[in-house]
Amino acid sequence: MTLKNDLILRAARGEKVERTPVWLMRQAGRILPEYRKVRSKMGGFKELVETPEFACEVTIQPVDILGVDAAIIFSDILVIPEAMGLPYQMVEAKGPWFEKTIKTAEDIAQLKTADPDDLHYVIDAIKLTKIGLNNRVPLIGFAGAPWTIFAYMIEGSGSKTFSQAKKFLYTQPMLAHQLLQKITDSTINYLKGQVAAGADMLQLFDSWAGALSPEQYNEFSLKYISQICDAVNEVPLTVFAKDAHFVRREMGKLNCNSIGLDWTMDIAESREMIGGSKTLQGNMDPCLLYADYAVIKKETIKMLKKFGPDRHIANLGHGLYPDLDKDKVICFVDTIKEFRF
Amino acid sequence: MTLKNDLILRAARGEKVERTPVWLMRQAGRILPEYRKVRSKMGGFKELVETPEFACEVTIQPVDILGVDAAIIFSDILVIPEAMGLPYQMVEAKGPWFEKTIKTAEDIAQLKTADPDDLHYVIDAIKLTKIGLNNRVPLIGFAGAPWTIFAYMIEGSGSKTFSQAKKFLYTQPMLAHQLLQKITDSTINYLKGQVAAGADMLQLFDSWAGALSPEQYNEFSLKYISQICDAVNEVPLTVFAKDAHFVRREMGKLNCNSIGLDWTMDIAESREMIGGSKTLQGNMDPCLLYADYAVIKKETIKMLKKFGPDRHIANLGHGLYPDLDKDKVICFVDTIKEFRF
Repeated sequence: MTLKNDLILRAARGEKVERTPVWLMRQAGRILPEYRKVRSKMGGFKELVETPEFACEVTIQPVDILGVDAAIIFSDILVIPEAMGLPYQMVEAKGPWFEKTIKTAEDIAQLKTADPDDLHYVIDAIKLTKIGLNNRVPLIGFAGAPWTIFAYMIEGSGSKTFSQAKKFLYTQPMLAHQLLQKITDSTINYLKGQVAAGADMLQLFDSWAGALSPEQYNEFSLKYISQICDAVNEVPLTVFAKDAHFVRREMGKLNCNSIGLDWTMDIAESREMIGGSKTLQGNMDPCLLYADYAVIKKETIKMLKKFGPDRHIANLGHGLYPDLDKDKVICFVDTIKEFRF
Repeated sequence: MTLKNDLILRAARGEKVERTPVWLMRQAGRILPEYRKVRSKMGGFKELVETPEFACEVTIQPVDILGVDAAIIFSDILVIPEAMGLPYQMVEAKGPWFEKTIKTAEDIAQLKTADPDDLHYVIDAIKLTKIGLNNRVPLIGFAGAPWTIFAYMIEGSGSKTFSQAKKFLYTQPMLAHQLLQKITDSTINYLKGQVAAGADMLQLFDSWAGALSPEQYNEFSLKYISQICDAVNEVPLTVFAKDAHFVRREMGKLNCNSIGLDWTMDIAESREMIGGSKTLQGNMDPCLLYADYAVIKKETIKMLKKFGPDRHIANLGHGLYPDLDKDKVICFVDTIKEFRF
């Protein structure tokens, strides 16, 4: 079974492509009325994530509606802490919330190392989606990077500063490493399960990378990302560490195919820092899609030219915001698909 | 009247100093039991800001208790939007909230350009504090950078993404410039008033710098910071643009004395990017102060050595967090004061 459109996989591997491929972080979500309709039938976000039929349906929607070059499985990075023994709730307008958090060595000892069976609903959703996609475009699987998952497990919710999670790193570094290793082992199992179920590509999201100093990032985040890159290399892998401008040189040495950039990272400078062996993904400011069509087109073409024809997967520098207009998003996608170098 | 301790002013001007000077962002605040005592007598944060006697008292506390080399006037960056016609409330555990926000050209036209009379309570607090300090250490005045103030005036509160403020930049750039100019004019008036009242040094806080792309930052933030630097040069001025790693080269060209660094910015790299004509301020991760005393000392000395003996004002890369232990903060300050190159 060969994919009809494998542009993203070829771009990730550094092969020639006829045009720059494009997908969007949070492409399956509230910007689509079709998503909101499915969502309103369910109890909430988490029920949607945990029901393979519906997760499959909303995963495929943006391929049909936006015309993107890949689907990404509809899920959440917090399925891993839950599979390890810390259930979460998604509180409307507030975000994730964990009843139990990690405080002691005993708390860590009680966590299990997750395996794909603990996340059968994601695995089933991937299998269903592969059938539904019928090889039109690749399916991307994903997980949170260990530091980001660790931060939620300590804080119990989002945070402006993640100061409690960082306090744990400064005051209990050995325990922090134990927990990070357990998360890493779970994540490797989980990503391998996603590949076995049919994921054609993977992405690691280090959403809270920017909370750490360069030294702490190397010790408590990059080390574990590196383990994952070495362990999971059956399909192309992208590492996206938001705000981690300070580790771009080190990112260039990871055993992965592509590196995500946010919109604060200058494209030419990032190419120089990351080096030629990686495909870059990104990096338009999602707020550009609030502008009028002419501005969107102009700025999108400017971005494409800055990245150049090779080793680029077009995307935003962050997920789509829920109040963006679907037609503006389509304008961004179409501008990329129509552009030729 | 000469200052008994003018280390910070000399360091800012690039003159020789016997040791590295130190102050801390949010040094007057919740980490001090003495502050909490004054605060509990008042209705809340805003009443404290608006009552010169009490603002003066808490401004001087850290000089006595922590032994820092400067006081910074106890106030808030949001006094400017209020003086321009948008009153704010400080909601406990939530942060600032504006009843009215800016949406239209008419909204902007109705705003007044603030002058020091509109902010007499800050001016009076500065005068009182100068008397109370009795020339022991310099007094720092401050304001928010125009983009950060603009962001609050559009959003009406803090935000994870400041997407509404950025939407305004993308969809109504001419109006955005009008509003930014009005904020800039008000800020120049206000800072000149602070200097006239006795402020020995100034700092501009661009707290939401990291929300913008490099291009937008140059157009909508740096341009106005630059106007302020050119207009207010009676005393040394520091520009601290949190997360704005991408404009360090441009920061080096500003007509100011020092540039603040957050803890994600590598010190040697920042020196190279900003150049030798600026003093650097920062940049310890505030979370280091959760560690034990030995770690705090070791990491603080490491930081001092990385900055070197010249053109450095020691500080954190962000404000103190309220749950930090006062004695740990004193350990940081003392380590800096005891260190000799």
